[in-house]
Amino acid sequence: MQFNLAQAIEVLERAPATLRALLRDVSTDWARGTEGPDTCSPFDNIGHLIDGEETDWMPRARIILAQGANRRFEPSDRFRHRARNAKRTLESLLDEFATLRAENLRILQSWKLTEAQLALPGDHPRLGPVTLRQLLAAWVVHDLGHIAQVARVMAKQYRAEVGPWVPFLPVLTDHEVPRS
Amino acid sequence: MQFNLAQAIEVLERAPATLRALLRDVSTDWARGTEGPDTCSPFDNIGHLIDGEETDWMPRARIILAQGANRRFEPSDRFRHRARNAKRTLESLLDEFATLRAENLRILQSWKLTEAQLALPGDHPRLGPVTLRQLLAAWVVHDLGHIAQVARVMAKQYRAEVGPWVPFLPVLTDHEVPRS
Repeated sequence: MQFNLAQAIEVLERAPATLRALLRDVSTDWARGTEGPDTCSPFDNIGHLIDGEETDWMPRARIILAQGANRRFEPSDRFRHRARNAKRTLESLLDEFATLRAENLRILQSWKLTEAQLALPGDHPRLGPVTLRQLLAAWVVHDLGHIAQVARVMAKQYRAEVGPWVPFLPVLTDHEVPRS
Repeated sequence: MQFNLAQAIEVLERAPATLRALLRDVSTDWARGTEGPDTCSPFDNIGHLIDGEETDWMPRARIILAQGANRRFEPSDRFRHRARNAKRTLESLLDEFATLRAENLRILQSWKLTEAQLALPGDHPRLGPVTLRQLLAAWVVHDLGHIAQVARVMAKQYRAEVGPWVPFLPVLTDHEVPRS
């Protein structure tokens, strides 16, 4: 499947509603469970997605489109959400993610990006040269990865409850060593 | 997290809306992409979840609750959905899954299961003795596993499009050898 802005937006615009459908008003046990020390709960995942809206994807797209002398992206802070959201509810984070995403997609679509613009380069602090097309594709994959992570983290809360079913439910043994 | 019927139902009742939010009206490329030969697309995942509603979870719960002489479950057919849904649209499967799930949850809740009933045993054809509680916990984990799988399969459609981002997006390298 080749990158196509309209198809990328299909996923980007569905992610907030998907996570809201899964998480809205769930018990704290589902919302705050993790995969072990130093891993993220569903609540943390939504916080991280909000950080992406505010500090990562669109700011980096703007750096690429500006094509200034310095195209180096700011490093992302994977833990910004922890202090930011310490007193927040999951429902307020789900709402905030939806609002931020809708505004970012409104702006993204208003740019009417051309193929030439999608091929423009930026400079990732750890990965080196990347194009706007690759950045937008990574945004899509990042959304889907966090939807998968939220579902996996929730599933693992019942690992001890399924008895002998563990080998038939591979989601329970994915990422036994944290990968993200 | 210990099994609790109300919390289990929180997930079981959210799964159809979650998958609908993610998949409704997406392009065929998203709906029908797979992880390679003999792996499942998002469309296939919804078909498999429908099979579970019709042939697996509730029929097995009924066998346990009956406590007849033969408590052996029917083996599940992981490929029933292929012929069944050959001419269907994804939207019609999403609707059917939601309808079947709602009816199954209506019946499940009407049973007003006691702790003693949740401890009753059945006989899984490959796993041996399992309790109703373990069956219902496995149903929840199975839902979450397929939500994670759908997101992962969609993410992999863009594996070649993210350029150097692959190592930062672990969902792209999960299940490189099929596990489910």
